Amino acid sequence: MTRQVRYLEDFTDGLVIEAGTTTVSEAEIIEFASKYDPQPFHIDRAAAVHSIFGGLVASGWQTCGLVMRQIVDHVLAPEASLGSPGVDEVRWPNPVRPGDTLRVTAEVLEVRPSRSKPDRGIVRMRWQAFNQHEQPVLSLLTMGLIRVRPRP
Amino acid sequence: MTRQVRYLEDFTDGLVIEAGTTTVSEAEIIEFASKYDPQPFHIDRAAAVHSIFGGLVASGWQTCGLVMRQIVDHVLAPEASLGSPGVDEVRWPNPVRPGDTLRVTAEVLEVRPSRSKPDRGIVRMRWQAFNQHEQPVLSLLTMGLIRVRPRP
Repeated sequence: MTRQVRYLEDFTDGLVIEAGTTTVSEAEIIEFASKYDPQPFHIDRAAAVHSIFGGLVASGWQTCGLVMRQIVDHVLAPEASLGSPGVDEVRWPNPVRPGDTLRVTAEVLEVRPSRSKPDRGIVRMRWQAFNQHEQPVLSLLTMGLIRVRPRP
Repeated sequence: MTRQVRYLEDFTDGLVIEAGTTTVSEAEIIEFASKYDPQPFHIDRAAAVHSIFGGLVASGWQTCGLVMRQIVDHVLAPEASLGSPGVDEVRWPNPVRPGDTLRVTAEVLEVRPSRSKPDRGIVRMRWQAFNQHEQPVLSLLTMGLIRVRPRP
């Protein structure tokens, strides 16, 4: 299997990239939240039952991390990715629960070569995650700095 | 020490809450990124030296998690916090490096009681993190669902 290296020229408006699936366990949800987001509905199974979620749910920041991993594995390449200045919108329309399997997609919205640095450009994408019931659980409007293809 | 429980009425426009400091180690940066964001500049010290960052830097999603932890410990209360529908803007203006200590602040921008559910409202805040050199490393425009104070 050859890994695909996408440079700036390989991101075209409207391109949709399937970024695989990932499953999160109750133990992973509690481990993440214990360190980064220890609210009762993320770490305490009994308390979570009486919360507005009716049970344990993943921290939204963990959902972002789970999706990022899929993007790193399926969309970005170390030869081309130069990090990100930020994200324009984060939405968590439905909670992620223990055992959920998330399907991740990336859609290219805009590709803009840099004016000041001709070796790179900005790619705007919408990253989305859906659970096994096809309910959306995360939507991100992202920006990424991507290198142009090196001249041979 | 009594923990302060802030209900919707306790968030007022312009209120600034100091949310303490947190320090992140190289081991924590590599551990987080190995699972959630395994790009070379987050997990490989040698490769990171030759990256645009000139050294290992934390995943931006870990910075969000570190800040969230400070917010959970200093701003939100389990009696009042009902989760979040999303974040309107995420910016990473400077990288977070091993050993950095982040100072976190939360500023209340807007408080809006819910029309449909009188027991709660939306609080919009700007969360910011600064490193030990007072450089900004994260800015978030957040929304949180917060309960109104229960009647006695």
